[in-house]
Amino acid sequence: MDIKQIAKDTAKTLQSYLTYQALRTVLAQISETNPPLALWLQRFCADKIQDGEAYIEQLFQEKAELALRIMTVREHIAEQVTEYLPEMVRTGIQQANMEHRRQHLERITQIDTSTPSPEPETQATSDPNNEQ
Amino acid sequence: MDIKQIAKDTAKTLQSYLTYQALRTVLAQISETNPPLALWLQRFCADKIQDGEAYIEQLFQEKAELALRIMTVREHIAEQVTEYLPEMVRTGIQQANMEHRRQHLERITQIDTSTPSPEPETQATSDPNNEQ
Repeated sequence: MDIKQIAKDTAKTLQSYLTYQALRTVLAQISETNPPLALWLQRFCADKIQDGEAYIEQLFQEKAELALRIMTVREHIAEQVTEYLPEMVRTGIQQANMEHRRQHLERITQIDTSTPSPEPETQATSDPNNEQ
Repeated sequence: MDIKQIAKDTAKTLQSYLTYQALRTVLAQISETNPPLALWLQRFCADKIQDGEAYIEQLFQEKAELALRIMTVREHIAEQVTEYLPEMVRTGIQQANMEHRRQHLERITQIDTSTPSPEPETQATSDPNNEQ
């Protein structure tokens, strides 16, 4: 497992995602002040937002003002949000893992307690692949 | 701008992305020890990895061992990686913004310095839309 490479890839993905959130924020702002421009931006972004940097570069060629605005907003979002992410993500994963394990245990227990059902033998032999 | 909501959405996206990285790690491991299982997992994941929790839940129904393994790996990756992300992402965005601004200035300057070219008047008037 190449932790360094995973960290790099994750940071890049996060950077693109925050660019997308900045775009959404700017869209919400200008849809009130300048609806035609908002519509233009909404159409422009459709398929290009996967790579945040490529997106901003292309937007610069079309409407530099909007690109500069999205850049400012994403920097602001990054400053406000990133410091909370490590704790949120670690807790989120731990809790989700616990919940998945709990549900799994419940399913196993249900299979065990189903033994006194009408045809326990048939059920046990009919689908041996279910056992892990 | 709803910073709290953006933080929540970002953490959820990050959680799914780390699940995807854990899947890739497990895939790399079992492709050496159990190629048929790796092939099965590769086919299973194709369209479901967008939502990490839904993916793990579905994998639990099919191969609980693999789901448990991916869960363990993603928790490990989260512990190793997340603490570095805030700094990496903030720096990444600042540097990318600086680079975009630099390129933008260069483009503007190129238009300005093109004035002493052989036919400055013609060029300046032929494409006035180039100016930002």
